[in-house]
Amino acid sequence: MSTWPAPSSRDRSPASSTPPSMDWRGMSGPETPEGPDEFGQIAEFFRPLTRGEPGAFDLLDDAAVLPDSGADQVVVTQDALVEGVHFPPGEAPEDIAARFLRVNLSDLAAKGAEPFAWLQTLAWGPGWSVDRRRAFARELAREAEAFGLVLLGGDTVSTPGPLMVSGTFFGRCPPGGMIPRSGAAPGDLLLVSGPVGDGLLGLQAVTGAIADPKGRLARKFRRPEPRLDLREVLRRCASAAADISDGLVADAGQLARASGCSIRLELERLPLSPEAQDWAARQASPEAALLALATGGDDYEVVLAARPDHRAELEEAGCTVVGVFHVGAAEVLHEGRPLDAGAGGWRHG
Amino acid sequence: MSTWPAPSSRDRSPASSTPPSMDWRGMSGPETPEGPDEFGQIAEFFRPLTRGEPGAFDLLDDAAVLPDSGADQVVVTQDALVEGVHFPPGEAPEDIAARFLRVNLSDLAAKGAEPFAWLQTLAWGPGWSVDRRRAFARELAREAEAFGLVLLGGDTVSTPGPLMVSGTFFGRCPPGGMIPRSGAAPGDLLLVSGPVGDGLLGLQAVTGAIADPKGRLARKFRRPEPRLDLREVLRRCASAAADISDGLVADAGQLARASGCSIRLELERLPLSPEAQDWAARQASPEAALLALATGGDDYEVVLAARPDHRAELEEAGCTVVGVFHVGAAEVLHEGRPLDAGAGGWRHG
Repeated sequence: MSTWPAPSSRDRSPASSTPPSMDWRGMSGPETPEGPDEFGQIAEFFRPLTRGEPGAFDLLDDAAVLPDSGADQVVVTQDALVEGVHFPPGEAPEDIAARFLRVNLSDLAAKGAEPFAWLQTLAWGPGWSVDRRRAFARELAREAEAFGLVLLGGDTVSTPGPLMVSGTFFGRCPPGGMIPRSGAAPGDLLLVSGPVGDGLLGLQAVTGAIADPKGRLARKFRRPEPRLDLREVLRRCASAAADISDGLVADAGQLARASGCSIRLELERLPLSPEAQDWAARQASPEAALLALATGGDDYEVVLAARPDHRAELEEAGCTVVGVFHVGAAEVLHEGRPLDAGAGGWRHG
Repeated sequence: MSTWPAPSSRDRSPASSTPPSMDWRGMSGPETPEGPDEFGQIAEFFRPLTRGEPGAFDLLDDAAVLPDSGADQVVVTQDALVEGVHFPPGEAPEDIAARFLRVNLSDLAAKGAEPFAWLQTLAWGPGWSVDRRRAFARELAREAEAFGLVLLGGDTVSTPGPLMVSGTFFGRCPPGGMIPRSGAAPGDLLLVSGPVGDGLLGLQAVTGAIADPKGRLARKFRRPEPRLDLREVLRRCASAAADISDGLVADAGQLARASGCSIRLELERLPLSPEAQDWAARQASPEAALLALATGGDDYEVVLAARPDHRAELEEAGCTVVGVFHVGAAEVLHEGRPLDAGAGGWRHG
């Protein structure tokens, strides 16, 4: 078993005296790329990410001590990225590192929490040379410093499968301050914190399916901006919140489901980026275009519920009302007419 | 992005209106095995594991709140298992679940911490049918209840690679109570909490390389017993500790390395199970046999450093003195003669 900084005996050449019969290890593929050994890699790549946090023990222990949060709640979230499943194969190590951190921070942002630390499991697949690992780690260091995070520990393993990186991220909230999914009530407004649909278009830009002359869409997909700036206004105003990762329709539906009510979403109210407006204008059906943007996912804006008396403060912070929570069936409307959002978008409505 | 209970749009059939160009998703293999959908699987398989812990929000949120630990330190550890890398392919789902939990609890036990909660990322590979997932989850539930743990959340994804399960486990310690790796000093005794080498032999039994008529060795490999029973005596007596996952020589060497000193290990002192004694007696070279047992790993006993005045208390608790910490070169001796432990065993000495 391998925990930093204890590279597993499975990841080393066995001592010459070790009995044989480890043949199943053949599955793990090439194990020791050129460059520093696993200790060296931990020291070079990951120790700087602890930024001297005492509870990280310089990554020289099997465990870490969480920094004391005083009276605050500790909020914890966990998200994994698999290459070829959660993002297209062939992305640059730097972009994978940035996306990994940012999608996790987006979860904490929507909960009203202030991120402070993380642990990570890295399963390097074949093809992750030392140079690629180094590039990943350097970008992770830059991003973590920018977001004020310290690495507490983790595990690094090799796998014959694709790269997988899983993070456990910690944030702080005042007592009782975490914004749940389950706090929406009929009569609450349904709001979004910014443009919807750029994640879908960004993915298409990354895969070359649509033009992206300024590279703006691809950049939004690769480097989503967690809405940590909204933390305090969300804690004051939101009765329920989540980030938009699976698509506005699905994620708003999740809030409703957890809260025991339903949504009525009015597609013509969706805030769109200039790029999404251009794209929608080129589609045959405006309502199908809006529905695609509302079900695409990977936006990493916040979807939230709020009592109507918080509307002005939320709009001032850049949020847009796109519907309401109500009792009864979930509805997606376009200019007053109900749409069928299809199996994908509606399953969670 | 997929966080319980928000199955990623990547894991669903896209709405009919979603633009195409998701062809890179083809890599993720068969995505929806027969049986309940991802929500249903979370509800059936994993919600019971929360055992009603309020901070888990019934796995209906993107995040969890850590249960309040009062003045205690929160100790956190993370270990990942990859099928075919950390254990042979073809193990039963129940055994994988038990091993996953137990190897992580072993880390906390060696730190003197009392486990209370965990999060997990499950990356199901091809071949993980609903029945196999169900079997995994049921055993996890049984084990978690036996160890008094609650599941706080996590992420579940699919991968074209082998099964990978990564856990973040939380334990409590009185303030300052976590036993570090780095507290050993020259003159400290080097002790182990129980038999050394059964992990190595257990692996060979599992792969059929050696006979195991009573199944005892295979059972030790599949269901290692985390030494949580030693928590309090370790906190009283140990100046440094770790669990034996990479082999006694490597893990003791890690304690020394983190503490700025070296070990002198006397192989003839190793406590051996009856099975290991039998095995060693059949080997051509007694010292090579002992060295193999001391470098094999997967024992999940505790290796520790302690001042000599704690010797009686530790021996009463079942620990055995196997050497000392000292200044100078690391040494592995057999009846007074120094051995060369080989590249594998020595790298960390």
